[in-house]
Amino acid sequence: MRRLKVTLEYDGTHFAGFQKQSGTDLRTVQGVLEESLVRLTGKETPITGAGRTDSGVHALGQVVHFETGSSIPVERFCRALNGKLPPDIKALDAVEVDASFHARRSASGKKYRYLVFNSRKPLALWRNYCYRFPFPLEMARVKECAAVLTGEHDFRAFSVAGSSVKSTVRHLYSVDAEQQGDWVRFSVIGNGFLYKMMRLIVGTLLETGCGKLSPGQVKQILEKGERGRGGFTAPPQGLYLVQVYYQDGFILDRDISIP
Amino acid sequence: MRRLKVTLEYDGTHFAGFQKQSGTDLRTVQGVLEESLVRLTGKETPITGAGRTDSGVHALGQVVHFETGSSIPVERFCRALNGKLPPDIKALDAVEVDASFHARRSASGKKYRYLVFNSRKPLALWRNYCYRFPFPLEMARVKECAAVLTGEHDFRAFSVAGSSVKSTVRHLYSVDAEQQGDWVRFSVIGNGFLYKMMRLIVGTLLETGCGKLSPGQVKQILEKGERGRGGFTAPPQGLYLVQVYYQDGFILDRDISIP
Repeated sequence: MRRLKVTLEYDGTHFAGFQKQSGTDLRTVQGVLEESLVRLTGKETPITGAGRTDSGVHALGQVVHFETGSSIPVERFCRALNGKLPPDIKALDAVEVDASFHARRSASGKKYRYLVFNSRKPLALWRNYCYRFPFPLEMARVKECAAVLTGEHDFRAFSVAGSSVKSTVRHLYSVDAEQQGDWVRFSVIGNGFLYKMMRLIVGTLLETGCGKLSPGQVKQILEKGERGRGGFTAPPQGLYLVQVYYQDGFILDRDISIP
Repeated sequence: MRRLKVTLEYDGTHFAGFQKQSGTDLRTVQGVLEESLVRLTGKETPITGAGRTDSGVHALGQVVHFETGSSIPVERFCRALNGKLPPDIKALDAVEVDASFHARRSASGKKYRYLVFNSRKPLALWRNYCYRFPFPLEMARVKECAAVLTGEHDFRAFSVAGSSVKSTVRHLYSVDAEQQGDWVRFSVIGNGFLYKMMRLIVGTLLETGCGKLSPGQVKQILEKGERGRGGFTAPPQGLYLVQVYYQDGFILDRDISIP
């Protein structure tokens, strides 16, 4: 048996999220990948992901690990696996790692992007790949709010109840927002993200940008750790898991840019 | 009755092309739009498009015209129509035009873009919005071929048999190719395009770029007008009808850029 680390790209549109939902026939990333691994290797192959993505969320660089007894050389593994995977999920990289590697626990950080179409105009073509936010944004306010969120904080207010994590302290290394025409792209790099944290951050940046919240209020919400006081949960289809960072990790050249 | 000119954006992925296919239940742009107009106005409203797009081809600025007795003010027409249209097709603009305006005959030109992922790497996320061409392209050759095609020529060799047009002479004002990382974007502006001409041009640019054809051969193929001698027909999902030009036309701010 050896342990493989595989980097995946997927279009989240037709997946009911990453995590397998036992007792349902929902199409999930984990479910589809595990089925493809059975078809490739002939053996049940449970996988572990770097993190869950919700239904509709896309990934340019999700990472998983699993154990396999397959004799397929690692340099041919991606191609062989891609032959079994459906068109909306593909393996970009596969490397053998030692038994201490863990897709989630070994990760030192993650990078997410979020794409917003900031316009009252209708949108047909990118509807599953961005979020249309019709209220004008004042980018200086967005950037002030981003500065408030950057750094090490208790992000309890930016998480949803019911998740079982021990600590809600996370360190955001950078929170950026770029505007180009009708498009705004948010980029956040952090050492970890609580459940729905990225979407709550984007909702808060948007509500600050359009004047519903002030950067000072966001600072208070963060300090008080009160859930439900920040911005709304931005919808999933604008969100992309771009990269999971590891020591000596594979550097992705995939990215999502402003259309 | 008055005549309206409406500019449309659509995601071609789930349309069996623009043109209504009588006697079938294929979902077409024309069919969906006409149904929505019936639901909006209560009257059968046949539409005329600036041109047909094939199944899978996208549009950022398709133009149609139709006659309507509807009393909806023109400035509210888009919004009202968008309320009836499904998510993958939206009206961007509606203006009243005089009875001499014709979406196809009044057009002075069109702009198409074609997006290529030029890599052997797999691709999940943009699979319906670009074409993956795995052979390395020499951009200098692509540009030489583009120069051969630019200008007024008989494009008979770049059309498919069976179409009933009188003349196969067209004027291409510009044929451009830009490369950025693994992506290549072709842009062609011309006074008109024969059926499948844009996709045959892209196939020819790609085959020239990867060395299967030479710019000199392309010149000969163009001059001799022999069908089937140029490049392959590039698949539909990379193609975008970006703009239809009219005198005093609506200038679109929609575009497709390199991801």
